Amino acid sequence: MQLEKHQIQDLNQDALPSHQRKFNYISGEVKNAEEVVKKLEAFNIAIPSWALGTGGTRFGRFSGGGEPRSLEEKIEDVGLIHALNRSSNSISLHIPWDIPDNAASVKALAAQLGLHFDAVNSNTFQDQKDQALSYKFGSLHHVDKSVRQQAVEHNIQVINYGVELGSKALSVWLADGSNFPGQLNFRNAFQNTLESLQEIYTALPDDWKVWVEYKPYEPNFYSTTIGDWGQSYLLASKLGDKASTLVDLGHHLPNTNIEQIVSLLLMEGKLAGFHFNDSKYGDDDLTVGSINPYQLFLIFNELVEGMDARGLDHATGIGWMIDASHNVKDPIEDLLQSVEAIKIAYAQALLVDYKVLKDAQLNNDVVKAQDILQSAYRTDVRPLLAEARLRAGGVIDPVSAFRKLNVRGELIKERGLKTVATGL
Amino acid sequence: MQLEKHQIQDLNQDALPSHQRKFNYISGEVKNAEEVVKKLEAFNIAIPSWALGTGGTRFGRFSGGGEPRSLEEKIEDVGLIHALNRSSNSISLHIPWDIPDNAASVKALAAQLGLHFDAVNSNTFQDQKDQALSYKFGSLHHVDKSVRQQAVEHNIQVINYGVELGSKALSVWLADGSNFPGQLNFRNAFQNTLESLQEIYTALPDDWKVWVEYKPYEPNFYSTTIGDWGQSYLLASKLGDKASTLVDLGHHLPNTNIEQIVSLLLMEGKLAGFHFNDSKYGDDDLTVGSINPYQLFLIFNELVEGMDARGLDHATGIGWMIDASHNVKDPIEDLLQSVEAIKIAYAQALLVDYKVLKDAQLNNDVVKAQDILQSAYRTDVRPLLAEARLRAGGVIDPVSAFRKLNVRGELIKERGLKTVATGL
Amino acid sequence: MQLEKHQIQDLNQDALPSHQRKFNYISGEVKNAEEVVKKLEAFNIAIPSWALGTGGTRFGRFSGGGEPRSLEEKIEDVGLIHALNRSSNSISLHIPWDIPDNAASVKALAAQLGLHFDAVNSNTFQDQKDQALSYKFGSLHHVDKSVRQQAVEHNIQVINYGVELGSKALSVWLADGSNFPGQLNFRNAFQNTLESLQEIYTALPDDWKVWVEYKPYEPNFYSTTIGDWGQSYLLASKLGDKASTLVDLGHHLPNTNIEQIVSLLLMEGKLAGFHFNDSKYGDDDLTVGSINPYQLFLIFNELVEGMDARGLDHATGIGWMIDASHNVKDPIEDLLQSVEAIKIAYAQALLVDYKVLKDAQLNNDVVKAQDILQSAYRTDVRPLLAEARLRAGGVIDPVSAFRKLNVRGELIKERGLKTVATGL
Amino acid sequence: MQLEKHQIQDLNQDALPSHQRKFNYISGEVKNAEEVVKKLEAFNIAIPSWALGTGGTRFGRFSGGGEPRSLEEKIEDVGLIHALNRSSNSISLHIPWDIPDNAASVKALAAQLGLHFDAVNSNTFQDQKDQALSYKFGSLHHVDKSVRQQAVEHNIQVINYGVELGSKALSVWLADGSNFPGQLNFRNAFQNTLESLQEIYTALPDDWKVWVEYKPYEPNFYSTTIGDWGQSYLLASKLGDKASTLVDLGHHLPNTNIEQIVSLLLMEGKLAGFHFNDSKYGDDDLTVGSINPYQLFLIFNELVEGMDARGLDHATGIGWMIDASHNVKDPIEDLLQSVEAIKIAYAQALLVDYKVLKDAQLNNDVVKAQDILQSAYRTDVRPLLAEARLRAGGVIDPVSAFRKLNVRGELIKERGLKTVATGL
Repeated sequence: MQLEKHQIQDLNQDALPSHQRKFNYISGEVKNAEEVVKKLEAFNIAIPSWALGTGGTRFGRFSGGGEPRSLEEKIEDVGLIHALNRSSNSISLHIPWDIPDNAASVKALAAQLGLHFDAVNSNTFQDQKDQALSYKFGSLHHVDKSVRQQAVEHNIQVINYGVELGSKALSVWLADGSNFPGQLNFRNAFQNTLESLQEIYTALPDDWKVWVEYKPYEPNFYSTTIGDWGQSYLLASKLGDKASTLVDLGHHLPNTNIEQIVSLLLMEGKLAGFHFNDSKYGDDDLTVGSINPYQLFLIFNELVEGMDARGLDHATGIGWMIDASHNVKDPIEDLLQSVEAIKIAYAQALLVDYKVLKDAQLNNDVVKAQDILQSAYRTDVRPLLAEARLRAGGVIDPVSAFRKLNVRGELIKERGLKTVATGL
Repeated sequence: MQLEKHQIQDLNQDALPSHQRKFNYISGEVKNAEEVVKKLEAFNIAIPSWALGTGGTRFGRFSGGGEPRSLEEKIEDVGLIHALNRSSNSISLHIPWDIPDNAASVKALAAQLGLHFDAVNSNTFQDQKDQALSYKFGSLHHVDKSVRQQAVEHNIQVINYGVELGSKALSVWLADGSNFPGQLNFRNAFQNTLESLQEIYTALPDDWKVWVEYKPYEPNFYSTTIGDWGQSYLLASKLGDKASTLVDLGHHLPNTNIEQIVSLLLMEGKLAGFHFNDSKYGDDDLTVGSINPYQLFLIFNELVEGMDARGLDHATGIGWMIDASHNVKDPIEDLLQSVEAIKIAYAQALLVDYKVLKDAQLNNDVVKAQDILQSAYRTDVRPLLAEARLRAGGVIDPVSAFRKLNVRGELIKERGLKTVATGL
Repeated sequence: MQLEKHQIQDLNQDALPSHQRKFNYISGEVKNAEEVVKKLEAFNIAIPSWALGTGGTRFGRFSGGGEPRSLEEKIEDVGLIHALNRSSNSISLHIPWDIPDNAASVKALAAQLGLHFDAVNSNTFQDQKDQALSYKFGSLHHVDKSVRQQAVEHNIQVINYGVELGSKALSVWLADGSNFPGQLNFRNAFQNTLESLQEIYTALPDDWKVWVEYKPYEPNFYSTTIGDWGQSYLLASKLGDKASTLVDLGHHLPNTNIEQIVSLLLMEGKLAGFHFNDSKYGDDDLTVGSINPYQLFLIFNELVEGMDARGLDHATGIGWMIDASHNVKDPIEDLLQSVEAIKIAYAQALLVDYKVLKDAQLNNDVVKAQDILQSAYRTDVRPLLAEARLRAGGVIDPVSAFRKLNVRGELIKERGLKTVATGL
Repeated sequence: MQLEKHQIQDLNQDALPSHQRKFNYISGEVKNAEEVVKKLEAFNIAIPSWALGTGGTRFGRFSGGGEPRSLEEKIEDVGLIHALNRSSNSISLHIPWDIPDNAASVKALAAQLGLHFDAVNSNTFQDQKDQALSYKFGSLHHVDKSVRQQAVEHNIQVINYGVELGSKALSVWLADGSNFPGQLNFRNAFQNTLESLQEIYTALPDDWKVWVEYKPYEPNFYSTTIGDWGQSYLLASKLGDKASTLVDLGHHLPNTNIEQIVSLLLMEGKLAGFHFNDSKYGDDDLTVGSINPYQLFLIFNELVEGMDARGLDHATGIGWMIDASHNVKDPIEDLLQSVEAIKIAYAQALLVDYKVLKDAQLNNDVVKAQDILQSAYRTDVRPLLAEARLRAGGVIDPVSAFRKLNVRGELIKERGLKTVATGL
């Protein structure tokens, strides 16, 4: 299924007067409205291939209808999202869930929908059928050299797939860890991981990066070998300039100040990018901005100020990706909500007057510093997002459009009610 | 120091055109703007007497200048806050920090400033000079009957002070707990607490309430005898109808879903009210709304819906009080920010269309349910608050007014630079 | 596979001299050694049917070999455990994973192995093939009456299965909750749950109990309808005397003082029993005692003192069950370690001199109170456990016996290498 | 007050037969008993000068009697501890709480008691009377260069005091952080801290070290500028070889795997040493080993294995210090319990058979790996500690000796009932 231009135009027709009123108002209230709209137009967030089906937990998975049955259908879904919000122009593949059998045709399909391929993701946390050695006790950190070798080779294969598709980065998340005290020698596990990553690093094309993710727990519940930003940073430093640290918002202990970590990684030139989601307890993988939208804003506040300080382009300076599953929502609607939440936080951060803020900071005027941030955050920037979408050819209200156009109904008609996408 | 009407009018004069533009816009966007403004006008939050000085930590306390040196000066400070925001028409006293030596004159002073006296708070977590027995090992839960008796009598004395001032509730927060396994027999500690509370309960005047606070830890770090809502609820149930549970937002373990607790306590008719503050780690006592404003909104969302369901008046149905200290801000500015944050959350909750929400819930339309809440939350309601203040005789922008009028400067002139208010 | 008496005797022969030396020593050091051994002999912990296969996470499941393929084989596994440790004389079934098609023959098989049937567990957190209505949005709390009805009927069916097998309790754990703010009306969810439980309660035979479990999160990540002990207690109180609260050690927020909850539930006569496991982060379902054995001891310290105070028999006064999965261990070895850890904690608690402890508490002698507990805890009670096993016909060292007898090898021979037991 | 040899001998006389029986038994059970005793004899833990008075919280401080009124009396108290346990042969001073006015005489007094001076600690988290500039908004990270300079100079002064006393390390704990989003620019705060530390680093004598402590929160409750091990490590790396990371056990977010951090810091040659205490919630500063003794053992398990791997002497390879306050215990008794807990954990770790453990790890035999650790941990090593004390001239049971000798009573006689030691 693909959306036609006229469908989008028809939908916008009705919503336009109300949008214009709102946009005019906010344009009058906010100094840099035009600049914000332009930056929002340029800003895209990659969609992970595994988020297009209904995610589950160890207790069960409740699939919805019309889930994509193939890589092609996943690309089609991202195309639908992008057609609606004009903010999701790339897809991040997960190997082996989405092996592109015919890279050329896959690339052509994506290009036709205005999409390209973001970072590729390896998977050494599950055993695949016909896999020689098991990852039950880890992969890149494994005590057995031959298991490590198998995992290294898988990563290199993922790079190769990525090269064919035009990706420029390998994203590595390791489940490697331990469930019980004594199970691991932490130092050996770390050194094995480093050596394995060095082999993968060596296989990177010149213009590629490797992004090293960290996570404190799950699926291992005593230790994780790359458990926090410090451990990821240590590895990335030892690996070299092509390696940096990927921040998944759900991968932190309770109460972690994530925005401070983000700021310091940026300062050290080691912030690879983000896996966006939201959470209340652990790696809950909830819709971005659904639990703590102010934290998301605070992160973007650090990003905008920090990227400007380093002269990084907001749209391309680091990697932006969603990583959320969603047991109880339509996956496409969930992704539309997630992208919206990210762009709202970005727009709010763009409203912060960093000159005045810096001044307040230099005077320890804490009341004012808070007020500057909250003033930006309290501003209703949704009309700026709508305007950016409108100018880019998207719809004013994506979720509502998705429903009015009965997209899911059409997908169910095409694909059936009992399809299950690959993924968690 | 007292603010004159003309000072306030002069300040508003300049801010009026901008305010009108904003208010007109939001009135056009929001169906029930007028109703919201009226409810905001009626809504007041009590100021605790101990929040008017600079709070500290065990590591130190950095006082600011012009802190109130007496109960009268504390009342004066609340009068200033109320004159600015018209939302803080009562004060909550803490005995023995604020013993009213002459209740009649104290009451008259308060009345002149448009203030009355909210719940009175007892203190059995510190030893006072010339106190016969120590609270080192607790008070109402103490193994020694005579210590319990002393603490009971103190609470009754606090009630008596409150009666003189026109208060209608006693707020009991107990530090009682233990630092080490083995120190306490939990059952005995609970039973002793119950018996002590029963004695206090008996001493309550007919139209009084007792509010039982809970807190998981600090200043005891292994157990607290009234540690969670369940323990407070158990006590309040055994005590009777005049007893209910007070929720301090900072008194929860990491990741607690506070809004669910609030909803259930309301359902059971056992929600006394709130001590508002914000926190990232523990009982951080930060400015309300400074860390997680969405959570505050979600709590008000439960309150508005739940109070309406029980036919409770929003303004008077339960107790509203701030309990925040603030090491690095001017205490009055901090309180102005806190009141503002509370009223923003309240106004946002008033925008939720509960009929539509209920419909979404009945259809398990999670995407829509989230959208309804976030739509209310994303709305910039600050002009509604400003309008309510304006109508009530307050200022459009309280913090800015406080600064333009050089209130702190005046207070320092009157009181000196090195004053230290009683409190933590 | 079944173990013969002579196999066990042969194994003990070698270990006996060393055991005798240790047991003699500890008998000389500890006043009540004989009493402890007797109580240990009487103490059994139920094995859940789902713990006999390798558990997994949402990221994968790495099965071992020789997992039981049927209810009969699960019973056989519990029989093996019991033959080794003489402490696991019952099995707790999970419906529909373990529907007993022929209750009489299943009962006979169990009886032959010295086993009976503990509480039966219902499952309304997963959809079963051919199930009419989905539990995607909950079961007993569902907005749709017909879904609630289906879940109620399932629970009644579980009771019926249990009656046939001689069980005396229904254990209810509900995944019901929400992932996003707005999804649920908390009050309605609670009231629906209460009504559903009342229907189930009505169906309980006279000598049955219903145990209501609580859990703060997972698989729902915003709210859980029975989220903490207070919510479970509230329901159990409204239901009546047959209802009480089941404590799963992993079902708490970070830093919760579980032993205090246990003590208060016992005091109120509402402690149903335990699901034992250990955890570092959330519901990690690790081997009991593998992460924080002192906490386990502190819980047993409350249990022994509190049950004695109520005159409850340790062995039968409340329900004892393991609920741990184990991705990286042989399930039977894991269960042997879990049972051992529970009995160690129990034995240590039996060493506490409660008279002296009470005296220290009454004198606020915190140093001594800690010392009394830690003295009991530091005592190496393993020879007391071994002696109890020996007297009861079990082996001195269960895990070592399991290995020497090559039990897993035999099971793989019988059942195959690629079997997967039902469960998580 | 000082203890005489004969007092100690008399006390031991009575306890000897029972000790001999226990020691003989354990010597027979444990292969390396003699080696463990020798290592225990060599192992000392420094006592912080501020732990000799009763610590408090922001809610109050309940002093005991006979607290030391001067540096000399603090040294005397450490002398008493050391005379009893022969394991506390150094004291760690905190400036300005314990400025040695006459270094020579202070040194002589210490030497007479068998003590020397461990790391010196600076204090820039409180304002001192007559201090020119305030640390309200931080010290080494301050936006104002002149405040940073004042703090740098204070640290250099602390080094100078330390040089006079024979210390070899400066321990830096910074409270610097922020309470509210927006208050700080994280990068600038970090860079300012680095520059300040570089100045201090330059002032270090050749044979000195600087230990950089980290802490996630308190007394600042939004961010701390050196908030986790990664941030401390980053600073220590940039500073140079003399700088390393100090681990305070209470300075971590909930559920942190501290032992893994310890292992990696050791691996990188950046582990300075420890501030020992225990905690359930945050920086609770409870007696070491009172809450989670298994975690303490796991940390020592990493230390013993990791230090051996690097060829570090256990006693002197890194810094060992207690940092616990204790509201409800006699400070000296608390320190005796803390030292005992540390040495128990150390002794247990010495019992681990690392060869067998390594073998289990290489075979992913998780059950066995757990068993090896727990077997060491479950062993009652207290007789080994008593033997080491006995051989070194200390008492068999320190707390009991402290009481029998009525040490506190004597100190109260000498110093009075209402003394208050400097400190928190």
